[in-house]
Amino acid sequence: MYITPKRGVLDPQGRAIEHSLKSLGFHNVGQVRMGKYIELDVAAQSAEEAAGEVGRMCEQLLANSVIEDYRLEVEGA
Amino acid sequence: MYITPKRGVLDPQGRAIEHSLKSLGFHNVGQVRMGKYIELDVAAQSAEEAAGEVGRMCEQLLANSVIEDYRLEVEGA
Repeated sequence: MYITPKRGVLDPQGRAIEHSLKSLGFHNVGQVRMGKYIELDVAAQSAEEAAGEVGRMCEQLLANSVIEDYRLEVEGA
Repeated sequence: MYITPKRGVLDPQGRAIEHSLKSLGFHNVGQVRMGKYIELDVAAQSAEEAAGEVGRMCEQLLANSVIEDYRLEVEGA
């Protein structure tokens, strides 16, 4: 799953990366947004069940829904 | 781009998430790996040029190639 700062929320890590890249000479860089990427294995009967389960994990623990969005991708095993 | 710990490298954040999820009652969770997800805009003539540029950014700044792998996806603007 991908957890990213919502649009409009200040992203200090992204800004820091942007400045560092520019000072390394990468002048064609535009806006940088930094988020989290989490891979996990879930035992489930179906892709829908796995997605529902991981959605609940995001809501309860992994994402702060006030300032972050999340997005899931399910891969079969 | 996605930056993840290499297989075999200890991933303490992933382990911490795994334990927290289990203590919240998600017992069907297997291994968790935590990485970084970075979105950035690059001005380039082609997808190949953009990918090359972002690859250089990863090598020079964003990923620690001793312990991390990275993977790129390019989207047209």
